[in-house]
Amino acid sequence: MMKVVIIGHGNVASHLATAFDRSRNIEMLQVNSRQLENVPNADVTIIAVSDDAISNVSNQLKNRKGLIVHTSGTVAMDVIHQQQKGVFYPLQSFTKGAVIDFSKVPFCLEATNNEDLETLEIVAKSIGEKSYQITSDQRKKLHLAAVFVNNFTNHMYQIGQDICDEHQVPFEILHPLIEETAKKITAISPKEAQTGPAKRNDTQTIESHLENLNLQQQKIYRIITKSIQEN
Amino acid sequence: MMKVVIIGHGNVASHLATAFDRSRNIEMLQVNSRQLENVPNADVTIIAVSDDAISNVSNQLKNRKGLIVHTSGTVAMDVIHQQQKGVFYPLQSFTKGAVIDFSKVPFCLEATNNEDLETLEIVAKSIGEKSYQITSDQRKKLHLAAVFVNNFTNHMYQIGQDICDEHQVPFEILHPLIEETAKKITAISPKEAQTGPAKRNDTQTIESHLENLNLQQQKIYRIITKSIQEN
Repeated sequence: MMKVVIIGHGNVASHLATAFDRSRNIEMLQVNSRQLENVPNADVTIIAVSDDAISNVSNQLKNRKGLIVHTSGTVAMDVIHQQQKGVFYPLQSFTKGAVIDFSKVPFCLEATNNEDLETLEIVAKSIGEKSYQITSDQRKKLHLAAVFVNNFTNHMYQIGQDICDEHQVPFEILHPLIEETAKKITAISPKEAQTGPAKRNDTQTIESHLENLNLQQQKIYRIITKSIQEN
Repeated sequence: MMKVVIIGHGNVASHLATAFDRSRNIEMLQVNSRQLENVPNADVTIIAVSDDAISNVSNQLKNRKGLIVHTSGTVAMDVIHQQQKGVFYPLQSFTKGAVIDFSKVPFCLEATNNEDLETLEIVAKSIGEKSYQITSDQRKKLHLAAVFVNNFTNHMYQIGQDICDEHQVPFEILHPLIEETAKKITAISPKEAQTGPAKRNDTQTIESHLENLNLQQQKIYRIITKSIQEN
């Protein structure tokens, strides 16, 4: 059985701990980053603390043996000082309280050698299904792409809700369309899936839409319309 | 049993015809818009043709009896010349070939009186579950909101894929995050769901992201970041 220690008590640490607790292949201990003395040995030590604190926690672990990894989407692997290091990054949006189904969460893994990578794959497979070998540089780009498909998409939802609220239209009418839009691109590429007035070059509809938006919304509408048309 | 005639052979017409065909409460006939003579009487005649053609088809139907409705998200109800008129707008993205589960599609209904509205509700309930009474003006605003949550969101997905492709990262890693982002706002509002560097005012990450984007992407990144921060 694989021995895993999780350091941290934030969202990622808690969700991982709950999942490992349920796995039969993992013996897991979760510790606070202020109690790093006398932590029992482990095959893998997962530093699941805020990005800024990873280096400091790694420092405190000094000559700890076994594989030491962090869970960040943006921090390079080399921030960990120990020689046997890696990254164990579950790419998902973790909300406090919400249950995470790890079977759907992709794990982005990085290590300095194949043996350590295989260890991380075993740990990932014990709670999830899909894992990918991703370099520190690719992980940064993935995080940037995630800003567009998660944070910016969510802001498109917010503008949609603002428009609905202003005209007493229930936003829930748009929920099925939102889910369908998200599902569609698992079957065809976003480029193929694109529809709407920008794609059709429907100038009349675009002008009529702009008349019904505030200044900030107009700017966003114009620049995304232009980007769709130039693609 | 309610008698329904569908005029048109496009995506919306075909999807509706397939659904009505399966319903036990509807007797349905689908006709081409070039064969409008001798169409049998019906309780509801659904003009499911392109926006520009609705007025013309309505003209050709002249003194046809029963309720005449169109299915457009943008065209006003008054484009129909008959006195007994309405709108039967299924708010969903219809892709040719793809099967539509109407049980999840909201129907936006409009009529000139309560009796006709109830008739449209019966027709909508025969193939779907949710229907809403929406005025022509509200429908226009809903369509505008849909451009943001569907077309513009899809473009965010495309930029995400462009970034992944450029760095040989499989875009499918982001699929679960995309689905989670879409699902989350059915439980909490987009405003509450917002996370990321813009929301956190994380200037360092924002600067580093901008360095990794092309000019068009930078413009979009900047303006959406600003809009998130001002919200």
